[in-house]
Order: sequence, then structure tokens, then C-alpha cells
Amino acid sequence: MTTHGDQDRIAAAAAIDEARLWSHLLEFGEIGGIGGGGVCRLALGAEELAARRHITGWARSMGYQVFVDPVANLFVRRDGTDPGAAPVITGSHIDTQPQGGRFDGAYGVIAALEALAALDGASVRTRHPIEVVAWTNEEGVRFTPGAMGSMVFSGALALSDIAERRGSDGVTLSAALASALAATPQATFRPTVRPLVAYVEAHIEQGPELETKGFPIGVVEGIQGVRWFDVDVVGSGAHAGTTPLSRRRDAFQDAMRIVNALNEWMSDPNDVLRFTVGRFEVTPNSRNTVPARVGFGIDLRHPDAGILREKGDRIAAMAAAAARHCEVSVREVFTKAPATFDRRVIDTIETVTRLLRIPSLRMPSGAFHDALFLNDVCPTGMIFIPCERGISHDPAESITAAQAAAGARVLAATLVALAA
Amino acid sequence: MTTHGDQDRIAAAAAIDEARLWSHLLEFGEIGGIGGGGVCRLALGAEELAARRHITGWARSMGYQVFVDPVANLFVRRDGTDPGAAPVITGSHIDTQPQGGRFDGAYGVIAALEALAALDGASVRTRHPIEVVAWTNEEGVRFTPGAMGSMVFSGALALSDIAERRGSDGVTLSAALASALAATPQATFRPTVRPLVAYVEAHIEQGPELETKGFPIGVVEGIQGVRWFDVDVVGSGAHAGTTPLSRRRDAFQDAMRIVNALNEWMSDPNDVLRFTVGRFEVTPNSRNTVPARVGFGIDLRHPDAGILREKGDRIAAMAAAAARHCEVSVREVFTKAPATFDRRVIDTIETVTRLLRIPSLRMPSGAFHDALFLNDVCPTGMIFIPCERGISHDPAESITAAQAAAGARVLAATLVALAA
Repeated sequence: MTTHGDQDRIAAAAAIDEARLWSHLLEFGEIGGIGGGGVCRLALGAEELAARRHITGWARSMGYQVFVDPVANLFVRRDGTDPGAAPVITGSHIDTQPQGGRFDGAYGVIAALEALAALDGASVRTRHPIEVVAWTNEEGVRFTPGAMGSMVFSGALALSDIAERRGSDGVTLSAALASALAATPQATFRPTVRPLVAYVEAHIEQGPELETKGFPIGVVEGIQGVRWFDVDVVGSGAHAGTTPLSRRRDAFQDAMRIVNALNEWMSDPNDVLRFTVGRFEVTPNSRNTVPARVGFGIDLRHPDAGILREKGDRIAAMAAAAARHCEVSVREVFTKAPATFDRRVIDTIETVTRLLRIPSLRMPSGAFHDALFLNDVCPTGMIFIPCERGISHDPAESITAAQAAAGARVLAATLVALAA
Repeated sequence: MTTHGDQDRIAAAAAIDEARLWSHLLEFGEIGGIGGGGVCRLALGAEELAARRHITGWARSMGYQVFVDPVANLFVRRDGTDPGAAPVITGSHIDTQPQGGRFDGAYGVIAALEALAALDGASVRTRHPIEVVAWTNEEGVRFTPGAMGSMVFSGALALSDIAERRGSDGVTLSAALASALAATPQATFRPTVRPLVAYVEAHIEQGPELETKGFPIGVVEGIQGVRWFDVDVVGSGAHAGTTPLSRRRDAFQDAMRIVNALNEWMSDPNDVLRFTVGRFEVTPNSRNTVPARVGFGIDLRHPDAGILREKGDRIAAMAAAAARHCEVSVREVFTKAPATFDRRVIDTIETVTRLLRIPSLRMPSGAFHDALFLNDVCPTGMIFIPCERGISHDPAESITAAQAAAGARVLAATLVALAA
């Protein structure tokens, strides 16, 4: 049985124009394009300001209002039938890594704009307004921290505490924000909006699960937790030719022993736990000198808070026990507990995929997203689409037009359901 | 029974003045001193030219002739009784590492000058002249390769092939050599000398063996061979949060597997083999990115040519077998076979230590020295003295006045024996 609400959702999804969405994505990817499919749009930089102007111009041409808040989050608003109703928010970010791809972040914003156009095309009215947001500085490359816009918006971070921070190019954040506000004079300045009905973010998976398992849509149940550790191993430099191995305090060899022990401790037959040593630095890093010091970084993630606690809490003791000759210190430098998204939003997305007969897989998100912080202030969910071989943060990042359209259809129908 | 020759040797050794030698070593260590006992005298740099002027001035004040050759090796000559006889050469180098110590190299030159003074003091005449040499650029910091002076002198390297190389400061070698020749106008320019009776080099051990075993003198039998390898491990970068461990091509983890396998293969119950991974570089070296690439350097040494060959020849195959997901390439970038010093020179040094009742240990040299190249052109030997905890190439490099004097006594008597 199809209800009246179902008909609006189906109509909105059907009005998604795959060719229009795809050409819009490719056009948008040329802003800050670096060739080979790559994009460099650092937060609040010249290319990212051009992307803001592009969105603002598009929104105005469609008759939508545009707003900007104190941290330069950009909102495109399609009004609802009830002028006093709280908005449903959707979107993602438009900044990229220095050697980023065309779809990380941008897909969630452009697909959401396509969803607004589809609702218009299908003449679907909603009681609640729907706002498409481009959060400022998700990547955290030029200014730290990443997810800055969504953190400030959700109250996790006070803008006044970071306004005078300088970016990697020496510009203060406050000056960069002023440039962004000046770049979109058609956008009306307004303070942070409350309350919110819900937040939904569409995003490429940035991992291989959907592609491997053959699902066009991932219904994201939450974001796994993370713990970051820095390990320092301090031994003694020595001449590689003259110093017998038995008399060395070789920081590299002790770091190896530590990683060997941790690899065993972190092994997970279900392959859910993520344990990565991505940073590893040797001092003095000379072929014929026994390493005096090694510093390395650990990234540990798991969707289960208990497992994340248990595995992480033993790192320091295991490292100390594994080292044979050196002094070892372990510091936890960052932690974020696993986030569980709102059951109603998750169920709404899943119901929509069934209604649209698009196969979907419930899954956690391996990466952080702005949704992590929105989840603290309103019912939140995410829609994943596959990306080729899970590659992201790279010019080789790739999706197909059909994949993009499937995600936009699920998003459009979900927005109708949430804003009805 | 003590022969007439023995009496000269004992007299020369007895004329070594411990206080004079020690104050000369400390005074010399102030040239380019960087505090804390450290010295920075880069080859042919301003401080090293000052050290050349110091030696030249001292030599002239003692009535010795000074010569300099095309690669700026500096020779102080004490004539023999036979004007046509070939010289015995002794010495080492006066350049240092950027954060070097006072004794590496300098000890062999200053102790040799003290030996000349002792022969004068004891009125010992020799048939052959004795020349104290300071070889140019042993350390190879400012200009490559190291051991440049002894390589050119011995014919292992043609000066014309390297004259236009630039140092780390952009100066060409030929310009730097011209500065050195201009800095010591009292030194007579002369081409490379042949034939040579013998070469003997006194040096701090730069390792812990003598100190640990309680011997004041090491009679060096040769220099262990070395093989240098570069290993490249190429995987794929990936997001640390989204990529399951089973789907990674983690170059760091494969590099670990390779080093684990090599550690086992290189293990030596006699603790003679030296296996070092001193350089290890991760790309992109970001905490939350699975490493796409690791490059690391291997330094392998052993005094036995057969073992060095056997152990080194299997590195490439073992690395390929140990890697699970990545492509591995192994290149041998440098090799030098073990050198065995001349039996007659070794025996002469050992006989002298017995005559002087100074305990001595036969041992290989773990480090390279200029003697490695002199060994190709004349009978060669080395005398080691202990240094504190084996520390070298560091301001903490340390010896005692008594240790310095013991080495100089053995050197003086050895020179008398070789030049008689």
C-alpha cells in the first residue's frame, strides 16, 4: 500500500535528474581543479570562496534564500508551508584536501541542491523548511581543527577561542571568515539556528564495503570511535659498524617490538577494528647510525565503545613490556567516543530505500563527518554511496553518475519524509 | 733479551709526554669548538683551515718540513738518515662531523706529532723519513665521498672526476681545495708520493670492546666489509578509518614483516655481524592514512667475506617473500669487501705492545678509516685506544690522558720499528 506521503517521496526521488546532477558535480569539481580529476579547495581560500559564490548564484537563480552564520557556514533555504517551523538540514562540506577528489564533501552539498530542485520539479511541498548547508572547514588542512563549522554550530567549540588562530599561510581565521562573508554579499548573515528537526548528510563511503558487497546505498548507523596515541621510544645513537647488537639501545628495533606486540593485541577476526601506524619517524634517520629515537602515531577505531576502551587502555602497558632496551612513553592525544545516529532517522532512510527498491546496507562510518557533531544537537543520519575501490582524499576518487543519482533519490525522499 | 732496536723503541715510547700530548689535544679541540666538548670542523671549511695552520705552525716550530698534495692532504715530514729512502706514513684526519667530538681523527694526527717530538726528545734516528698526514675530508659531510683524501692518494678515486662537485654549501671542491692550499703557504706543494714503507693510523675505537674487556690497546687486524641496501615497499594509501585491515596494502606493515624476517636471518650468536636499519621513511607519514610507501636503508657488516656475501645475497629474496601485500624492490647501493691489514705491520704493533708491557687485543675495526684505502697501496695497520662507552660522532666522545699516552707510546715505538 502506498500512502499519500509515499507518493510525495516517490515523486521527489523520480524528479532527480541524473544528467543534471552529474554535470553539476563535474562543473563544481572544476572550481579549484588541479587536473587528473583532483581538486584543491582549502577552507576559506580563493577557490573555496569561488565555490561559495557558485552555490549562492545557483540558489538565487532557483529563488532560494541564502544565509551565512558567524563561522561562515552557508545555508540555502527552501521554505516550508509553515513559516514558523524548524528546518530540516542537509549538506556536507565544499573544502577539500590539498590533493583531494571531486566528490568528498561536494557530493553531499550538490546532491542536496539537486534534491531541492527535484522537490520543485515534482511540486512537492513540505511543512518544514529544508536547508542545504556547506559546513566551513571540514578537512582541517589550512585551519585546525577540522569539522570546525559543524563544531561551532553544534556548540562543541567556541568561535571566540579560535578566531585569532593563524592558518598554514599565516592568515588569521577571523580575517579568512571576513573574506568568506564578503565573498557572498547575497547571503544574509544570521546567528546559529535552533531548533532543528533533523540533519541528514549524503557522502561517498570513502571505504570499499558498499562496492565490495554490491550495495548502492549505505544506511549509516553511527560513526566509530577513535583514539589517537603518540608513542616515543628513546634509546641511544651509536655507530652501525662498531657497536655490537647486544650493546645497542636501538629505538627502531624496540619500536618494531612494540608494533609487533600491538598488531597481535589488536587482531580482530571480524575485521571491524581499525589499527593503523601511519606516522613513524626515526632520529637521526641515517643509514649507518643506530636510531636514537623513534616517534610514531597510532590511530585506533572501533564502533563499540567498550572494545575501543579495552583495546586502547592497554597500549601503554603493552608498549612498555615489549620494549627491551629503550625508554617508552605513550600519550593519548585525541579521543572521540563512538556516535550512534538517531533510530528514527536511520529507519526513515531505510524505509525510503525499500520504497524506492534500492538495496541498502546498514553500516558504521569509518571516517569522521560533520554529522558527528550535528548528532549532539538534533536527530541525525547519513546516506553513503559507493566510491571506486574506496579511494578518497586523492584525485583518483571516483563515482558514477548512476551512483550519484541513487544517493540523491534516497536523500530527496528522506528529506520529504522528515520535513513533511 | 733487549736488542739495540728494542732500546730505541723503548726510548721513543718513554719520551712521550702525557701532559704535553693531552694539552695539545685539548688545545686542538678548541679549533671549531662548539661547547660541551663538541667540535665542528667540516672538511676545508674555515675551522678546518685554522686547524691546518695550527699543524703547519707547530711543525715549522719543530723544524719539520710541511707538504701538501693536490687533494690538500697535509704532510709533516721528519727526515730519515737516508735521503733517498721511502717514508713511513702515519696520521688520520682533522675534519669532524657537524656535532663531532675532539678525538675522532684528531687523535691520530696529534698523537703522531707527539711521536715525532718523542723521537726528537729521545734522539732516535731512523733510516726512513716519517711523515704525519692529515687526510682531507674523511667524514664526507660537506663534500662526498668521505675518505676522499686517502681515496685520491691511493688511486681509488680520480680528483679530476670530482673537482667540480659542489659541497653542501654550494662551494665547488676545486675552490675549497684552492682555499686550503692558500691557507698554508709554508707547505710545499708536491704530487702523490710513492713508494711507501708502511702506513699506521692511531684512532679511538668508536666502539665499546676495549673498554668492556679492559684493554688499553687494540691491534687492528682489518676492517670489516660492508654492504648497503635500499629497500622500497610500495603499497596503497588509504583512509585509516574506513579501510578494513584485510583490504589494505599497508607499506608500513609489510616493511615490518621484512625487518622481522631479516632480524631472524641476521641473528648471530657470536654477536660479530652488524645489521642496522638506521633510515626508515614513511609516505605520506600521516597518522590517519595507511602508509602508501616505505623506503628504508640497511647497513650490513662482517669481517668475513663469505658470511657477508651469504647474508647479503639473500636479502632481496627474503624481503620479497616476507611482504604480503606490497611490491618490494631491493637495490645494493654500496659494497666494500673486508680488508685484512698487513701481517708484518700487525705483528710489529703487537710485538711493540709486549715490549712496552701494555696489554693489547687483536680486533677488527667496525668503522671505516683512511687506512682502508692505504691498505691497497702499502703495508698498513691501525692502533686503537678505548673511548668512553664507545661513543663517537658526538660531543660526548671522551678518552683519558693516560689512554691517549698509551696509544702514542705504542705508535712511537711502532714507527721506530718500521722506519729503522
